[in-house]
Amino acid sequence: MKNNRYIVIVGCGRVGSYLANQLSRQGNSVVVIDRNEAVFNDLSPDFSGFRIEGDAIHMEVLNMAKLKKADILIATTHDDNVNLLVAQVARKIFNVSLVLARVFDPKREEVYAQLGIDTICPTSVAAEMFLRAVAKGSLEKEGGQP
Amino acid sequence: MKNNRYIVIVGCGRVGSYLANQLSRQGNSVVVIDRNEAVFNDLSPDFSGFRIEGDAIHMEVLNMAKLKKADILIATTHDDNVNLLVAQVARKIFNVSLVLARVFDPKREEVYAQLGIDTICPTSVAAEMFLRAVAKGSLEKEGGQP
Repeated sequence: MKNNRYIVIVGCGRVGSYLANQLSRQGNSVVVIDRNEAVFNDLSPDFSGFRIEGDAIHMEVLNMAKLKKADILIATTHDDNVNLLVAQVARKIFNVSLVLARVFDPKREEVYAQLGIDTICPTSVAAEMFLRAVAKGSLEKEGGQP
Repeated sequence: MKNNRYIVIVGCGRVGSYLANQLSRQGNSVVVIDRNEAVFNDLSPDFSGFRIEGDAIHMEVLNMAKLKKADILIATTHDDNVNLLVAQVARKIFNVSLVLARVFDPKREEVYAQLGIDTICPTSVAAEMFLRAVAKGSLEKEGGQP
């Protein structure tokens, strides 16, 4: 895929800030939204995107982020309900073509799937990695280092 | 590997209780430790292991869990510091051969590695999964459903 996509990231914690830095570095246009301005300090000095301080459950914040123009929305706050709501709005109202959400509660993954939202559940992934490590007697590392 | 190992799990949250249920079902002897007795409700009715209500940073709790006999220790509380401490004690004092710990802060993974402790970092894993999904334009699911 091309690397000049318009990407809106909701939540600038460890995962959100890492993604914002990486995706901006790759040449994408990145907008990052968080309620807490202080977390923007985790963005690297060469982050070339926009920061919006605000609550993404409000339409005016999503409008400010020009979500209508977005190719991708990533919802990665620490609140599953916020991620679900923002992801639904992005999909249904703003017609964003790729919507990804983090969900901590594996039981909610089904709900998301029914709504056409792709989820990443760190809880499930960690559990399966532990099980594989126990079965093998050692840990097989994968993934990178944000 | 054989399925009658002695496994101590510290932390009975979503990941800990899922692992306890699965590993017990596979035929292992499982002991699960948590400070909060209420979380043991997440263990399935057919869980055949032991529950210990207590703080695993105390030696008497680890002794009560017979950690000396354990083949595997899994530290999966929500507190990185507790996981690091318990994992170190299991490795250095109780000579447990396989010690696995969850760590949310990717910056701590190096410290664990230097101490000979295998870590799983849901933060890093989620971030890499998001990046791959963005690169491909869709999400490739892996892992199971606790």
